Amino acid sequence: MSDGPSPGRSQGGPAPSGGSEAHEVASVEAKNGPPPVEVSAETFLKMGQQVLAQQPFSVLIDAELLALAPGRCELAVPLAEKVLQQHGFAHGGVVSYAADNALTYAGGTALRVPVVTSEFKINYLRPAVGERLIARAEAVHAGKSQAVCRCDVFVVKDGAEKLCAVAQGTIAALPKKD
Amino acid sequence: MSDGPSPGRSQGGPAPSGGSEAHEVASVEAKNGPPPVEVSAETFLKMGQQVLAQQPFSVLIDAELLALAPGRCELAVPLAEKVLQQHGFAHGGVVSYAADNALTYAGGTALRVPVVTSEFKINYLRPAVGERLIARAEAVHAGKSQAVCRCDVFVVKDGAEKLCAVAQGTIAALPKKD
Amino acid sequence: MSDGPSPGRSQGGPAPSGGSEAHEVASVEAKNGPPPVEVSAETFLKMGQQVLAQQPFSVLIDAELLALAPGRCELAVPLAEKVLQQHGFAHGGVVSYAADNALTYAGGTALRVPVVTSEFKINYLRPAVGERLIARAEAVHAGKSQAVCRCDVFVVKDGAEKLCAVAQGTIAALPKKD
Amino acid sequence: MSDGPSPGRSQGGPAPSGGSEAHEVASVEAKNGPPPVEVSAETFLKMGQQVLAQQPFSVLIDAELLALAPGRCELAVPLAEKVLQQHGFAHGGVVSYAADNALTYAGGTALRVPVVTSEFKINYLRPAVGERLIARAEAVHAGKSQAVCRCDVFVVKDGAEKLCAVAQGTIAALPKKD
Repeated sequence: MSDGPSPGRSQGGPAPSGGSEAHEVASVEAKNGPPPVEVSAETFLKMGQQVLAQQPFSVLIDAELLALAPGRCELAVPLAEKVLQQHGFAHGGVVSYAADNALTYAGGTALRVPVVTSEFKINYLRPAVGERLIARAEAVHAGKSQAVCRCDVFVVKDGAEKLCAVAQGTIAALPKKD
Repeated sequence: MSDGPSPGRSQGGPAPSGGSEAHEVASVEAKNGPPPVEVSAETFLKMGQQVLAQQPFSVLIDAELLALAPGRCELAVPLAEKVLQQHGFAHGGVVSYAADNALTYAGGTALRVPVVTSEFKINYLRPAVGERLIARAEAVHAGKSQAVCRCDVFVVKDGAEKLCAVAQGTIAALPKKD
Repeated sequence: MSDGPSPGRSQGGPAPSGGSEAHEVASVEAKNGPPPVEVSAETFLKMGQQVLAQQPFSVLIDAELLALAPGRCELAVPLAEKVLQQHGFAHGGVVSYAADNALTYAGGTALRVPVVTSEFKINYLRPAVGERLIARAEAVHAGKSQAVCRCDVFVVKDGAEKLCAVAQGTIAALPKKD
Repeated sequence: MSDGPSPGRSQGGPAPSGGSEAHEVASVEAKNGPPPVEVSAETFLKMGQQVLAQQPFSVLIDAELLALAPGRCELAVPLAEKVLQQHGFAHGGVVSYAADNALTYAGGTALRVPVVTSEFKINYLRPAVGERLIARAEAVHAGKSQAVCRCDVFVVKDGAEKLCAVAQGTIAALPKKD
């Protein structure tokens, strides 16, 4: 079960998914939680990066959160030797990690509450050979208690991106403790 | 894309899934490949372990192949600090790695040819807290070019196993090069 | 060959999956809902059949509930001309209907509250040619708000069953209205 | 197993996904099959509609192919009483039928060979209440032997579309007979 981030509650225009500029304000329309609090896109991303830094496994494989906005996430994993399999491709488990974690960030920031990944499905499209993986996820629907998200995983080689996997999954709000 | 094992072609009675005794003979009825060659269950497992040892990522997280027979696999990952997330549970990406790799072994040994994981789906059932993960997979159907497999992932705590995730996926034979 | 975990979710004698005998008592240990009420297996099945009879689409394709017990369900669809596709096989949509509905019954009877199907995944294994489909589903885990279930779909031809699809999905309790 | 269409082989500019104008030429870059033959977008759609008309189950529920181009499909199901469940929503099995069939058309036209649906996964987002379902699918990757496709299913009520389900699946080329 992947406990994910809920790094803040924000209001305003959507942050760019490809990066974040200081003082830009991110938002999401969620049906859940207390009234939103304004957080800059830069702060939003930093909060997400702090969560990632607390995951020993994400640190082990040098995962990096490139961008984060409500309902959107971009996460990278460098393709060092240690994350490969016997033919020099990224191990399927690493590709699925990238998809899983990106889905969780997208769903967690869409729901704006503590979440877990309930389930996901992934289709591998081609061997992931290159310098790094980039997983881009977004929430396609956010209800009261769960968000459904999609993710595209790209492999970057010589600066060019190729789609290497696609995923779809459910991120669920943790039940409130009474 | 998870390149998996196809460690041998064998004939005879099915090997036990919970372990393997020397000189016992493993087999699978596959529609594919050349006439089967006899391989002892012990040799079959060792061949699978050699494949795992060639996967740097599997070595990184200390994955261990506990049992292997045609269409069946049992794979473990010790829950050291490095594979956890921020709440002390096994990271979802590690649970999905275990499922992915076990599915690939089950499908690869059912098809008895070089394979890749095409796709899989996983449902997380409870936080994986304990000493280690054990993923048990089996092929439920093997055709000419692909096998469909299921996997149960258990977390072992104080010697007791609890089911923590279930998965289902497709393992495909690599196309033959002409 | 789909041996999955079947953690008995019943208290008292579980109802037989191939039929139900009068006065047998069915129940389920759920974390949700009011204290269980004893209902005979026969009554339990009849209640499920009444729900099915209220679904116009299930009536349209002559679906039949063969067995029902907490966390378990067996549902059939006769393979009349009207449910086929252009090659005389059961249409994939009919196979997925059978899986979807069986999963929902298994999850709903495990949770013992009104439910909806959140999601499922299905792998088609072979063309469904024969007299009827039988979908057998069971809950592999039931929590407070959702159950995860698996389903095997068989096609019956000349009295022999062949596995033609396998599915896995999540059944969610409907949120309570305040 | 859903046998799907491969209604033609074409070359030229992509046909619009929302409709097709006469004499416009559709194409797809596929790695498989014989050299492409030019087919107008209008002819392409008509060929797809003929396949649908040969599926008794699609006829039973009045499914309609609205648009078809290589790797893209738009399919509708009117929400008559007969396709509903007990609460007046479209039955989940009908929503999954629409997704399954649209995925198969998208994959079949991307691969340009006879195909079957291998597997798919669907997440239901909201009850489908309205006048009709529209499923829009597209191939996100087409290799030699299979295509991976995504599908959005909308419910149309009072002229407005709402996303009610999302799906992802694999469409496989039928093995060639020797």
